Formats: sequence, C-alpha cells, structure tokens
Amino acid sequence: MLRRMLCVSYFSGMPGNSIGHSLKLTTYGESHGDQIGGILDGMPAGIAIDIAQIQKELDRRRPGQSHLTTERTEYDTVRIHSGVFEGKSTGTPIAFSILNKDQRSKDYSALEKVYRPSHADFVYDAKYGHRDHRGGGRSSARETACRVVGGALAGLVIPDIEIRAWTSSIGPIEIKTDWQHLDLTKIDAHPTRCPDPAAADEMEAYIEHVREEKDSTGGTITVVATGVPVGLGEPVFDKLQADLAKAMLSINAVKGFEIGSGMAAAEMRGSQHNDEITADFQTKTNNAGGVVGGLSNGAPIQLRVAFKPVATIGKPQETVNSAGERVVLEAKGRHDPCVVPRAVPIVEAMVRLVLADHYLRNLKYKR
Amino acid sequence: MLRRMLCVSYFSGMPGNSIGHSLKLTTYGESHGDQIGGILDGMPAGIAIDIAQIQKELDRRRPGQSHLTTERTEYDTVRIHSGVFEGKSTGTPIAFSILNKDQRSKDYSALEKVYRPSHADFVYDAKYGHRDHRGGGRSSARETACRVVGGALAGLVIPDIEIRAWTSSIGPIEIKTDWQHLDLTKIDAHPTRCPDPAAADEMEAYIEHVREEKDSTGGTITVVATGVPVGLGEPVFDKLQADLAKAMLSINAVKGFEIGSGMAAAEMRGSQHNDEITADFQTKTNNAGGVVGGLSNGAPIQLRVAFKPVATIGKPQETVNSAGERVVLEAKGRHDPCVVPRAVPIVEAMVRLVLADHYLRNLKYKR
Amino acid sequence: MLRRMLCVSYFSGMPGNSIGHSLKLTTYGESHGDQIGGILDGMPAGIAIDIAQIQKELDRRRPGQSHLTTERTEYDTVRIHSGVFEGKSTGTPIAFSILNKDQRSKDYSALEKVYRPSHADFVYDAKYGHRDHRGGGRSSARETACRVVGGALAGLVIPDIEIRAWTSSIGPIEIKTDWQHLDLTKIDAHPTRCPDPAAADEMEAYIEHVREEKDSTGGTITVVATGVPVGLGEPVFDKLQADLAKAMLSINAVKGFEIGSGMAAAEMRGSQHNDEITADFQTKTNNAGGVVGGLSNGAPIQLRVAFKPVATIGKPQETVNSAGERVVLEAKGRHDPCVVPRAVPIVEAMVRLVLADHYLRNLKYKR
Amino acid sequence: MLRRMLCVSYFSGMPGNSIGHSLKLTTYGESHGDQIGGILDGMPAGIAIDIAQIQKELDRRRPGQSHLTTERTEYDTVRIHSGVFEGKSTGTPIAFSILNKDQRSKDYSALEKVYRPSHADFVYDAKYGHRDHRGGGRSSARETACRVVGGALAGLVIPDIEIRAWTSSIGPIEIKTDWQHLDLTKIDAHPTRCPDPAAADEMEAYIEHVREEKDSTGGTITVVATGVPVGLGEPVFDKLQADLAKAMLSINAVKGFEIGSGMAAAEMRGSQHNDEITADFQTKTNNAGGVVGGLSNGAPIQLRVAFKPVATIGKPQETVNSAGERVVLEAKGRHDPCVVPRAVPIVEAMVRLVLADHYLRNLKYKR
Repeated sequence: MLRRMLCVSYFSGMPGNSIGHSLKLTTYGESHGDQIGGILDGMPAGIAIDIAQIQKELDRRRPGQSHLTTERTEYDTVRIHSGVFEGKSTGTPIAFSILNKDQRSKDYSALEKVYRPSHADFVYDAKYGHRDHRGGGRSSARETACRVVGGALAGLVIPDIEIRAWTSSIGPIEIKTDWQHLDLTKIDAHPTRCPDPAAADEMEAYIEHVREEKDSTGGTITVVATGVPVGLGEPVFDKLQADLAKAMLSINAVKGFEIGSGMAAAEMRGSQHNDEITADFQTKTNNAGGVVGGLSNGAPIQLRVAFKPVATIGKPQETVNSAGERVVLEAKGRHDPCVVPRAVPIVEAMVRLVLADHYLRNLKYKR
Repeated sequence: MLRRMLCVSYFSGMPGNSIGHSLKLTTYGESHGDQIGGILDGMPAGIAIDIAQIQKELDRRRPGQSHLTTERTEYDTVRIHSGVFEGKSTGTPIAFSILNKDQRSKDYSALEKVYRPSHADFVYDAKYGHRDHRGGGRSSARETACRVVGGALAGLVIPDIEIRAWTSSIGPIEIKTDWQHLDLTKIDAHPTRCPDPAAADEMEAYIEHVREEKDSTGGTITVVATGVPVGLGEPVFDKLQADLAKAMLSINAVKGFEIGSGMAAAEMRGSQHNDEITADFQTKTNNAGGVVGGLSNGAPIQLRVAFKPVATIGKPQETVNSAGERVVLEAKGRHDPCVVPRAVPIVEAMVRLVLADHYLRNLKYKR
Repeated sequence: MLRRMLCVSYFSGMPGNSIGHSLKLTTYGESHGDQIGGILDGMPAGIAIDIAQIQKELDRRRPGQSHLTTERTEYDTVRIHSGVFEGKSTGTPIAFSILNKDQRSKDYSALEKVYRPSHADFVYDAKYGHRDHRGGGRSSARETACRVVGGALAGLVIPDIEIRAWTSSIGPIEIKTDWQHLDLTKIDAHPTRCPDPAAADEMEAYIEHVREEKDSTGGTITVVATGVPVGLGEPVFDKLQADLAKAMLSINAVKGFEIGSGMAAAEMRGSQHNDEITADFQTKTNNAGGVVGGLSNGAPIQLRVAFKPVATIGKPQETVNSAGERVVLEAKGRHDPCVVPRAVPIVEAMVRLVLADHYLRNLKYKR
Repeated sequence: MLRRMLCVSYFSGMPGNSIGHSLKLTTYGESHGDQIGGILDGMPAGIAIDIAQIQKELDRRRPGQSHLTTERTEYDTVRIHSGVFEGKSTGTPIAFSILNKDQRSKDYSALEKVYRPSHADFVYDAKYGHRDHRGGGRSSARETACRVVGGALAGLVIPDIEIRAWTSSIGPIEIKTDWQHLDLTKIDAHPTRCPDPAAADEMEAYIEHVREEKDSTGGTITVVATGVPVGLGEPVFDKLQADLAKAMLSINAVKGFEIGSGMAAAEMRGSQHNDEITADFQTKTNNAGGVVGGLSNGAPIQLRVAFKPVATIGKPQETVNSAGERVVLEAKGRHDPCVVPRAVPIVEAMVRLVLADHYLRNLKYKR
C-alpha cells in the first residue's frame, strides 16, 4: 500500500502554513531556497517596530552561537518589506524575509534518495511526490527562524505580558528548583540557556559527552508567561491551552506538552490539585498553570515541552532509499547534538504568537 | 485589576466553538438549557448514517453507566435534523441535538455567586460579565456529548482507520503491559475501561476508596489509531500532532499530551529514539508515535493524555464568592470521583474528528 | 462528460454553510426535514435579546402575508436553545431552530427525478449524487428564514446603525424618486414593500397580471445603512463592499449587485463621479455608496440588488429527468409569482450580518 | 463624530489580506515600499511552473504598455522564492515578490495631508491613525500586481478551464455584439483590450478625448470561463457566484457585478429567463451565467463588472486636508485616464483564483 502511495503524486490539501486568526502568521521557504520569510497580518497600527529588537531574538536562534551548537555560521538578517512606515506599524501586513546565505546544497546531494530515519524525507515523498530534498527542504527547522521574527513582532502587541522560556532538562539532567527561585535574567548567560548554574554546567558536559559519542539528546523547555490578563481563550475548542498545545506541537521535534501540573495531574487527588481562590480572586496554588475552563485566570501561564533527540547522528543507522534498498547512514558534517538551547527563543515566539492572537480576539465590545 | 475586570461586561472575541476545516463541528448549549447540539458541516454525500451506532457511542459517555460514575441517570438521545436523507448523508450540514432532561437547576442556585476552585466560574464572569451559572453552563463537560456525536459521524468518513482509547492509569495505578499485548476488545467490559484485568480491578478499588474519602482522582487515557494512510497532516502549523494536541487539550480537565515517546523523549538519545526504516517503508520501532515531520507515516498513531482529578469534591475547600467574601465549600450530591472512564469515548471522538478532517484535507488532485 | 459526473457520488468539499468571522452564522436544514436552524457564534455577552423582535423579522419573511405571496400559511416560530440567559446574551453560541410544519412532501414526489429549469436539481445531483429532492431540499429558499433570525440577532450588535431595504422595482416598474425623499416608514404598509405609493400600486397590479399569465417576474431591492462608523472593512480582500457583495449574491435568485453609482459608474467621468470632501470630512455626493478604498466613510451605505424571476411557473417548459428523457413541466400549486417583497427582510438580514461582523472585526486595540 | 475618530489610533481588526481557502493567496506591500509580493498556499505538488508565463500576465497589467496608459515605465519582474523545485511545485507555499523600482516618493510629499476625493486617504487615516501616504500606500492599485501573479499560478491548477476577460464598454461606448461572435484572440491586439475592432477604435478615441479634458472615464469588463466542471461552489454562503462577486468587488474601483442576466434579470419574466434543460443536461440558454443554486452547471460562467472612473484627475476639485482646511486639488503628472484595459488581466486573475480554490474544495472523496 505504501509503495503505491509513493507513485502517485499531485496530492492536494487545505494548506497549513498559517497560524492565528486575529494575528495571523504565514511562513514560506525551504532550507536551501534563496530565502525564507513570512507575512504577519493583523498587526494593529501605531506600534513602534524596533528592528534591532527583532534581530536580537533572531540572533538567539541562529546556529554557531556557542561551542554547543552546529559550527555553521549563518548570519540571519531580517528585512521588513511592508506594513511599517516611519518606524511604526500601519495596520497593513508586515512581510519579512531572511536570505539563505550558507546553503552548501552539494552536501545533501548524496542524501537525495535516502530516507533518513525519523526525518520527514519519506512522508514528504509519499504525500507530495515531488520535494526539495536539500537540507530537509520545507521540513527543515530553518523555517522556525520565521516564527522567531513573527513572535518578536507579536510580542509588541502584548508588552505587559512577560514571556520567558528556558532549558529545564537535557537528557537525564534537570533543574530541581522551583522556577520562582531561579534567576531568569541568567537564561542567556549560559550556552545551555539553563538558569540554574549547577544544572547548566552538568547539562553542558552531558551535551559534549553525547556529541563525542556521535549521538544526540533530547530535553525539555519550560515557559512562563506573567502579566496575562484574565479571560484570554475562546471556549470550547479554542481554549487557551488548546491553542498553546497546538503551537508547541507544531515545533519540529516536540513530543509532549504539559500545562500546570501536566502529566502528573493524573496521579493527583482533587484535594491536592484544586487551586483555592483568595479574596482578591487570585489562587493560592497554580496547578492549573494559569488557565481554567480554557480561559486565563491571571496566574502565570506555565508550560513544559519535551523535545526528542536530534534525528541526525553520526552513529551508523539502517534505513532505505526511495527504491526500498537498504542503506547504512552515518551523518557527516555539522549538526547540533541538542537543539534545546536554540529552541528556547522558538518556544517563546510561539507562545507570544498565541497570546497576542488571543489578546486581539478578546478586545472589548462596548457601546 | 481583577476586580475591575469583573465589573466590565460586553467583551467580544472571535468565537471558538468550531473545530476542523474540511469537516467542521460547531457545538452549542449549556448544561441546563433546554438542549445541547451541534452542526457537522463538510460530511461527504452518500455515506450510510447508522443512528443506532451514533447513539451507542453516546451511551458510552453518559453518566450512570456503572457504580463508579455519578448516580444521575441521563438518557441522552441524539436526534438528527438535517443532512441525512433515506439513511445516507446528502453533503449538506448535519444538525443534531440532545435534550437536557434531568436538569435540577435548583441544585445550583446556592452556587450562583460562589467561585468554585478549579472551575470556570470566576473566569467566565470576568470575561463575559453575564453567565449561565447553572451546572457550569457552557463550561460544563456536558458539552462533550456533542463531540461524541460529531466524532461518531466523523468516524464514518474514515472507516478503514480503527481508533481505540482506554484508561491507562488512574491515580498511581497504571497498566504496565505494552498496548500490543492488551486485548482491546475488553475495554468496555470493565467499568474503568481499562483492558488490563488486574490493573482494572485495582483502579476500581482505588476510585471507590477515593470516593469514600470525598475526594477525586486523575488518570490517563491512551489512544491508538491504526490503518492511518501515509501523509495526513499539513506543514508547518497544522502538523497532525499539532491538531491532535489541540483537540486533546480542548477537552475539559486535560493537562498533558504525549505522542509516541512523549515527555520521555527528552531523556533519550538519538540512537535510541530514531525509528529505523525497513525495505517496505515501515519503521522498526515507533517512538514517533506514527507522525514524522507533521505527517502520518503509516505506523499506529499513539497518544497519551492526562486528566486532572475532578474539581468538585466533598471535602471542604476555601474559596470566595463574586463579592470576594470567603466561603467554605463542601460539594453535595452527585459527582464522579473520576471522569477518566467516561472520557474514553470523548478522546476517541476528538481523534476521529481530527483524522477525518485531515483525511478530507488530503484528497487527491489529479488531472 | 456530464452524464459521467452523474454516476459518481461521494464528492467532498470544504463546506460553505457559515458566514462571518467574528460573528459567524452557520445554518442547516432542508425544506422538508423536521426543522431548519442555525448557530450564531461570536455574539458579545450582555446584550438584551428580545425574541419578539426576532420573531417579528421572521414574520416579515413568511409566505402568506398578503394576496401577492404564496397561499401556504407557514407559521414560522423561532426557538432559541442556548447562549441567552435571563434575557441577555452570555457570549456563548446562540442556537435557534424553526420547525417545518407544513411540509406536504407528497406534492413533490412527482418531481423526484425531474430537473426543473433554473432550479438546482441537476447540479445537486451532479455534485452530491444523493439529494433530498423534496421542495428543493437544501437549495430551497426556506433556508433564508435562518438568515433572517441570524440577521435580527446581528442587528442587536450594531443598534446605532439603521438598515432599511425596500422594493425599488418589479419588472419594468421602478421608483423614480431619490431615496432621501421616500417615506421609509411606509415600506411594510404596502404588500409590495415599495415605499413609493404610486409605484407600489403599479407593481402590485403587475405582479397580479404576471400571476394570471402563469408567469413570474424579477425585481430589485435597494438597501441603505445609515449611522455606519468610519473604517469598517478590511483591505485588501475583505473590503466592506466585497463582503456585502458576497452576502447579497449568496441569496437565492440574486443576479446583480451595485454599490453607490453601481453599473452606471462605467459610463461616468471622474469629474462627475468623485465625491468632494467637506470641512467636516463628509462628502458632498455619495457616488461611492458609503465605501471608499474598501472602508466605510461614514456616508450611507447604499446597495441595489437584482432578483431574477421565480423559476417555478405554471407555463409549460421543456426539460429532462435524471435519465435524460424529455419532460414537459407545468408547475401546479402554490408558488410566489415574485419573491421580491418577501426578500426585503432577507436582504436586510444579510447586510446586518456583514456590518455586525465587520464592526466586531474593528474593535479598538488600546494599551 | 468623525473628527473624534481621527484622533484615536491603534485600531485592530481581523485581517483581510488573504483570499481563498484551499488555495489561499495572501498579499503584502505598499506602493512605495521596497517591494510588494505574496504567498500562495495550497498549490498541489507536481505542477510545472512556467515563470515566463506568469511574467507575461504581469506584463499585461503594467503601466506604460500603450499610449492610453500612464507614462510611467515600470518593469515589474516577478521573483519566486519558495515552493518550486526543479521547475515544479512541491506543495509548499509559493512566495513571490516584485520590486518597486520607479517610486518617485517625492511626487507625493505635497499630498501627505490632503484627502483626495474618492481616494482612501481619509478612511485609512480614520481607521489606522498612521498610514503610508506615498502613492496611496496599501490602498494603491499597485497591490493588484500580486493578484495577477497569484492568478497566473492558480490558472495552472485548472488548465482545462479557459478564462477570458475583455473591455466591453468605456464610458458610453459599448460592444453590441454577443460575445460568442467576437474573436477573443484579438483582445490584446488593441490597446483598449476590446475585441470588437470598431468599438475598440471608438473607445480609444474616447479615452484620448477624456484625457485631453483632464478627466477620466469608467467602463465595464466582461469575463467568460468555459470548460468549468459541473458542481463547483459550496452552498449556502460560499455559492460560486457569491465568491466571484466578492473577488470582483475586492478589486479597486469596481462598483457593480452581474452574473448571467445580471441587473436585467429584474425586468424579465420567468418564462423568458428560465434556461430549459436538454437531453444531454445542457441548457438552451444561459441566463444563469453558468451557475444555478450556487453551483456551476457546466455552461460558460459569464460575468460583467463595472469600474468607476479613475479618481485622480487634472481638473480642479475641492477637498480638505487632515486639519479640515479647504484645498483645491489639480492632479499633476502621470495617471491613467481609464484603468479598464489594464484591469483586464486583474479580473482574469481573480476569477482564476476563485475557480481554482473551488476546484480544490471539490475534490472527490472515494473510498
């Protein structure tokens, strides 16, 4: 059955390259095309757009930031083409692009017909029949650079909401401290983006160890949003946690999502889990993770996201090519042993996009 | 700030009561209105609609099925009003409704102004300013009955895909056996909907114990879909796992979502996690959980979802009323100590809705 | 080619039974099912819902209002099932239904396989393969009763906007007077819904004459909306006139749409057509029809819509049945010779839905 | 009231820069930014993309093609950035851009605060509070270049459908011949894009006469689509004619829309208007204009669209500036006296986008 599917091409489908309703990001671009980019539609007019600030977020995502990440040195520079006039948004769509400078497409020619394990090569071939195989094409995590730009713009819509993400675990090493006791201004001070200094050093050593073994590792990112107004989220399907979960699971390599108590909620009792309400309508605890009944309740929104280990590893792996012939693959060249530190700004960006979208979906109707 | 928000009413927002694009379910109804219901738009024409089969799914969700669930005896009966002619779908929208027979609104009058902990009372008041407080109104899990009907209809679009969900843990008690070794025909044979007989009995005892203590418990549901064609899912935002995560997190009380390796992926290495591909384009393992690069790869789709414990408990809890005055709440009357067994058909329904929607988004364009 | 299409069934398609984004109406129902209805999602909370007022609009649409319309006496009564509590909207979806009381399905059995000229019988068969033929099924204008209900609710969102539609021509007879000089409180006083008494009487006589000849006639409806705030409409595709045109052309039997100068604009010169702007930002003329650059400019929105003559006539017509066999058709029974008077409330309803939707899409973002 | 609206800025709104559902075009760009462009999402994979063909369509729209159009010589060149690999679509979004070369922003500095009659200056200021005034900014017809590119790509999805538009009237001069008797291969042979040689010469003389008088003129465009399969269109709101009307009215300067008999239907009788059906399920006449009950019936789709005269004229006009002070405006420089000939490819493009979108919304579901 699968073989037959490989032969048919010309599949259609309602497209999925946009996210958001009131604030809508559409992205485009392949890893080795001439550029990637996007359009953010729905930005209110009159907002000061600081390109340096957007560029700074983009710099946090780029490879080659530290010895832990891939050695490629891409200098991603964002260019804005519309929707901004004299430094302020005009309410029209903001288009942006980032050139693909350091493509080295030749590196990938050997892989043209090989289906790399846990990569999208096979499924893209099966679905589309025709694909840009270079560097993963559209399935490459390079696309997430556009999310970082979109998220930085979205953040300008909700300046009173502070969103911070950090590496909370790498492989078996995790932060034990409750986030309220971490110094979140230190996140970027360590190449792991872990704000707990002791854990961070352990994580760094672990990543280096894994790299030496030509292997890779997964990890988790925790993200907290404070200053969220009460009432964001739209019952019953566009609950705030539902849209956050979708945004998180739309990021390459994410396999799990938790809000508040998360998976651990399953083991708890109601008397433990319930967040009692105080006289100022705050809650004593925050097992809810800031969302009740699909709506923000004013408490910090607290999420945890699991990333699988990087699929490209130097160790030999068995797989097949498009003809179904057995291939043993040993990845050469430049690849991250762990994407988690670089994914921190991506996670933040997606949370910003969701919260700004829901903020704009929740404006006051008043006659 | 919160107090001020409580005073303003008249909020607007882009509505969120629909899910799906090619197959779109819109639901309506409050717990204590005269009826609940929905419209399923996008059903292809010519599909035989067996109302008895839909009713059967609805019966799996209703309260009063076993001694473990609430004692209310609601006999939910689905009525179809359109879109079906001479037993087959016509391609026009299928509207359905379910009467609210056993309302007992008076039970709730005492709660009119009390904000129950971990319920949506406060956030609905803050967002909307005017709410139907009876039985939770729109935020009640009663709404999920409409999802079960919609999901049963959606299942008719994808008859070759088999979707099975079951209780995989209740509180600290979990199934240890790999799902391939479980007898999934036994799910409904036990009131817990756990197909592992030994674990099921333990879970049953645990739920009864928790009830005696006037408390409640959480749990997890695992769901597996087999027979999924390769290529469902739309990069980059409507990845299949992203839409599944959204659908799961849109269910009341869900706090966590995992696909394939899930949260555990964070601790794994690439060499462990990668699913090697065989000559027939299958994978040796399924850490991916059936989705790679946002697209189904033909392997079983495998999800796990965590439900928090029921918020309504008999134990005394501190909270406030809408005036901010301290109230001690001890829930009386009929409430489930654990929703997980009844949530099994809801989880299945949501997976059906997502897979059928993506199936219809992925039809073949062929000239 | 057509014959082949008739044989295949099971077509799919992204469904089209919803209109609006911030305020979204979804309708369902066939002419001879048990009921028709809809869901209006996005209604802000706290709005007083006067069911009598909604019923009044519905009464304006029903058949049997005067000797000019069909003799069927349907007493359409709207029932509201959700989204309203203690007389006010709650912000949750408002579901409503109208029973189909006077169905007489037997009248249509003879037509089961006949493709009536200029009716949807053939195209529905070709698209869906399986259709409810009774009374036109989903393609019946009965569906517009749901639009009237939705529009009446939408009107409550924009109480400061006054929307008035009237019959401006029937066949060759038209109002010559400029609308500003008509007494628009007289619209419903005449069975034609023409506010120019002399023209109205002529129209009435013309309709009766046409009916005697077993024929039917078309006509136009003019609609004017005053009190529209400046700035409604979303460039570049959801321009206000674009969404109004779509709404008008979605009404059964509409063949043409004009805003402001309309088709006549093609013959005009810029020096005639341009609307000069005065010191209070008003315009001296209103050739624009109240919309410039896709945005309302505060002047009255002025539209004209052409309805084709009713397709069902008593005169003999040649056509075929589904087997392609020649049939001569002479419609018996109860049919309007002219739908225009009854379409007036439908046109108003659609304008209300569009303006309320755009009103809610245009709320103020203010930090 | 209007003055007050001018003072507030920061309006939001659900954005409107996308059209289509299965095939979705999003455009961006201002007249005097660095570039304009768009993203076409939903293109099926495997379609040969001939950039020269797209460029050719774009060339038909550009100014400076003949002595009748503005003297600016913009050499618009389309660049494609994604979604095409080795000459064929990959199923991923196709991004394209066109540089704004000949901007001359200084020409517009004098107009910064003047509200030109029948232009969008005032309404954009009122809605957004902050706008790029240069050359009309986002409200400039320059944006339509992106539609031509999008439409050319959309046309590749429906190669069996032939879409032809032409100038059918300019001011008072119109084609009298029925379109079936015109030589539609001659459309581009005349600078007016009128395929009736005698009328074309008259139109040309009329345009020149109007220009000499420092005035402008409107006109109509007729468009016919043949080879349309039966069944395109989605009841009840996304009827094919409804989406076509929206697309047409979204084009700058369009004031009226007719399908088939159009506005004239209002004067007709049923016995004249009805299209009798023949044994091969064709119709003897085509008053329907190819759409019945919202669905294509296989007959040619036939539309007529009215364009108002160009708002920018050399004759003096009274208006005001943003301070409400009286200004007399006499447009200098390069402006078309009539946009109709250049609008022909824009109209075709929009029809292509709608038909391709509905084609992809109507794929066959077959188990």
